[in-house]
Amino acid sequence: MFTEQEKEALYKCIYMRRDVRTFLPDPVSEETIMKLLDAAHHGPSVGFMQPWNFILVSTDQVKERLAWAADKERRALAIHYEETRQDEFLSLKIEGIKQAPYTICVTCDPTRGGSHVLGRNSIPETDIMSVACAIQNMWLAACAEGLAMGWVSFYKKNDVRDILRIPPHIDPVALLSVGYTDHYPEKPILETANWEKRRGLNDLIFSETWGNSKS
Amino acid sequence: MFTEQEKEALYKCIYMRRDVRTFLPDPVSEETIMKLLDAAHHGPSVGFMQPWNFILVSTDQVKERLAWAADKERRALAIHYEETRQDEFLSLKIEGIKQAPYTICVTCDPTRGGSHVLGRNSIPETDIMSVACAIQNMWLAACAEGLAMGWVSFYKKNDVRDILRIPPHIDPVALLSVGYTDHYPEKPILETANWEKRRGLNDLIFSETWGNSKS
Repeated sequence: MFTEQEKEALYKCIYMRRDVRTFLPDPVSEETIMKLLDAAHHGPSVGFMQPWNFILVSTDQVKERLAWAADKERRALAIHYEETRQDEFLSLKIEGIKQAPYTICVTCDPTRGGSHVLGRNSIPETDIMSVACAIQNMWLAACAEGLAMGWVSFYKKNDVRDILRIPPHIDPVALLSVGYTDHYPEKPILETANWEKRRGLNDLIFSETWGNSKS
Repeated sequence: MFTEQEKEALYKCIYMRRDVRTFLPDPVSEETIMKLLDAAHHGPSVGFMQPWNFILVSTDQVKERLAWAADKERRALAIHYEETRQDEFLSLKIEGIKQAPYTICVTCDPTRGGSHVLGRNSIPETDIMSVACAIQNMWLAACAEGLAMGWVSFYKKNDVRDILRIPPHIDPVALLSVGYTDHYPEKPILETANWEKRRGLNDLIFSETWGNSKS
């Protein structure tokens, strides 16, 4: 059902997709944003609960408050790193909220679908995992559309709830910056910065039971 | 950088991908499985922690024990549904572990990358969300390769730990059945079975703050 060209297009997207922190001020059309959100909305979800919402933030006023929350958390976290690692950490550009034309807050509503969502009853965190799958669809769509996306996970959830008036039972699981960039990274930023290395895939695969190396 | 055809190929994959529960016994080549796992391994991860492992199960003996764990949980969960909904629930085929040639247990190691993984320090569950993004890459790759995949989330994690000898600190977040099928669903199985409806995307989007409808 998929031609070789179609398969290659998917893999190209999977291998090229990067977390981006540097954005151009160029506007993004609402039509393109809707393509990303529709891709997200067609992600899988446990018990088909579709627990996601998307808050589109494009005003400077709200973006500045989100950037403030992220920067506050960044400074707090820096304290937990040892001396050299702390300088290294503080030199990393970890978000581009004020630069990117859009920040999309993706939330998870754990109450959606009622008290006994099929599958979520056994493993409750399948709700946020569903949201993560939706985000990955969005990320691949952004890459194919020539857009850059960055997933910001530096914030206290209650700060984001306050800023975006999110009810207490709703989980603001991600802040996604979306825009164009002239710095689309070839490799993960943290790999280039020597923060972490890519692991060898074969070391991560086991056969039949944990620890039993393949071949 | 992406042609219109390439974009369409990605969207085709995103829109066609389904959770599958019915498999043919036809074998799947190890080469194809490796393509899926490499796609997973190129998913995003918080602090580039790459917290995943993949346990490939293909022997009948181990698959039967996993199917037993899933069926036990299914019967236990059925008790929580009310009468009509219980019959409806029990009539659903919720897993195809014994049918599919492969079951892949995907795990999350929350200790990988040390005590202060960048980003995970603020939102600890970004580790399992990273694993979910990897799974979504795998799922799209499976779809493009003409394979079917089903995400089983009916089990007690300690049963799966016992069966696959997984250490207590490692989280077995998903059991994925992978194989060929002659029943690739056009719509989500739970939609066809009238268990849940697809929500309208516009109702899930807010502008600037929660509850503030777009347009």
